[in-house]
Amino acid sequence: MREIMVGKVFIVGAGPGDPELITLKGFKVLKIADVIVYDALVSKELLKYTKKNAELIFAGKRPGKHFMTQEEINKLLYEKAVQGKIVVRLKNGDPYVFGRGAEEVMFLKSKGIPCEVIPGVTSAIAVPAYAGIPVTFRGVSSSFAVITGREADGRKLHRVRIEDIARAVDTLIILMGVGTFKEIVERLRKALPNTTPIAIIENGTTPNQKVITGTLSNITEKAKSLKPPAIIIIGHVVSFRNSLWRLR
Amino acid sequence: MREIMVGKVFIVGAGPGDPELITLKGFKVLKIADVIVYDALVSKELLKYTKKNAELIFAGKRPGKHFMTQEEINKLLYEKAVQGKIVVRLKNGDPYVFGRGAEEVMFLKSKGIPCEVIPGVTSAIAVPAYAGIPVTFRGVSSSFAVITGREADGRKLHRVRIEDIARAVDTLIILMGVGTFKEIVERLRKALPNTTPIAIIENGTTPNQKVITGTLSNITEKAKSLKPPAIIIIGHVVSFRNSLWRLR
Repeated sequence: MREIMVGKVFIVGAGPGDPELITLKGFKVLKIADVIVYDALVSKELLKYTKKNAELIFAGKRPGKHFMTQEEINKLLYEKAVQGKIVVRLKNGDPYVFGRGAEEVMFLKSKGIPCEVIPGVTSAIAVPAYAGIPVTFRGVSSSFAVITGREADGRKLHRVRIEDIARAVDTLIILMGVGTFKEIVERLRKALPNTTPIAIIENGTTPNQKVITGTLSNITEKAKSLKPPAIIIIGHVVSFRNSLWRLR
Repeated sequence: MREIMVGKVFIVGAGPGDPELITLKGFKVLKIADVIVYDALVSKELLKYTKKNAELIFAGKRPGKHFMTQEEINKLLYEKAVQGKIVVRLKNGDPYVFGRGAEEVMFLKSKGIPCEVIPGVTSAIAVPAYAGIPVTFRGVSSSFAVITGREADGRKLHRVRIEDIARAVDTLIILMGVGTFKEIVERLRKALPNTTPIAIIENGTTPNQKVITGTLSNITEKAKSLKPPAIIIIGHVVSFRNSLWRLR
């Protein structure tokens, strides 16, 4: 390792919150990394397994609260790599699901930095699973879509055809939808029956997990004190929670 | 452990093929399990880590080639659990993404068997990632949908509104679509421009990974010798492969 002139950057998915949902591959590079650049929602538990002298850098990205800009993060990853360091960029969930991971890889590659993406368990699927909600179910849900409640800066919800998507698929999962929750529900009501089941899962897969269930007609009232991070899931699979939750 | 009267069943996602993409949590229960009931596409590498006297049972489920029926699998999991065994049901990808995992959990719970689902890295996202294709990309793809090319028995592609879904989302991922590939492409052509990029990834994340790219107009010709397992991905993110692939 000491003779490497240029290091390498691993863009790693930490999983949805439960630290044990990181992959073996991600955990392995986390343990040998010289530098770890981690996001706000990444489990602090995971950082305990980094090597003694590893440099831990908080990038702090989360909706509306950017500690570092994307450009600063890109530059940081690049600078550490050219110093010959093994760098782990630890991101919540999967790096290619609304994580801007592909932008980081593209930037580093354009600079000639060796770079590898290590996928993670996505919150979009695992958070509902921990709450007893399967995104698919034979005969009930044969399709699901994942969207973000936030959009590219300045455009917000306008680009995502949320009504069309909601009508086309059996199950819809919305990430980062807390800030625009009221607007989301209003738009969903135009597309789907008011009786459609919906669940909101705050802090999913962590000890602070909180689940609110309802229908499109009553969820806004029920979720008044909603706080991020939360996953929203809409569709008949939400009803399976009664049969699948609390199995231990 | 020896005093437990009823065992426990863990429904575990093995990930998309690369054995190192299993989660720490899944790997932990795999190592202590008395019985492992595994599917055809699960990495054989993983089975090497089971304990010495563990009973390995091949369930063999794969499209069109069911070694055991779902009912036989359910019964097997139940019988092993009531014998006090720790049972791991090892499934490809994520157990709740077209894996019938929720049906297994529901059956076991209805029989009073302790049961826990351990999510996995889904092939739908990780297989494209390994091929240099991100399912989302800021400004290009803010939504993705996942469907299956196979449907509930006898109905096949009819229930999935593939044209509507393809029109509504930025990226469409199709699992188990080899058998119906020609029909899928024909239907996609009705919904999307013929120039829409499409990729097919055979044996994704394994040493045998093979990627075919093209457009809706030429992919049927290009993918004549297509064999399962394969993931199909449609949308402009496919073009990023040129910038993101082969980074090591």
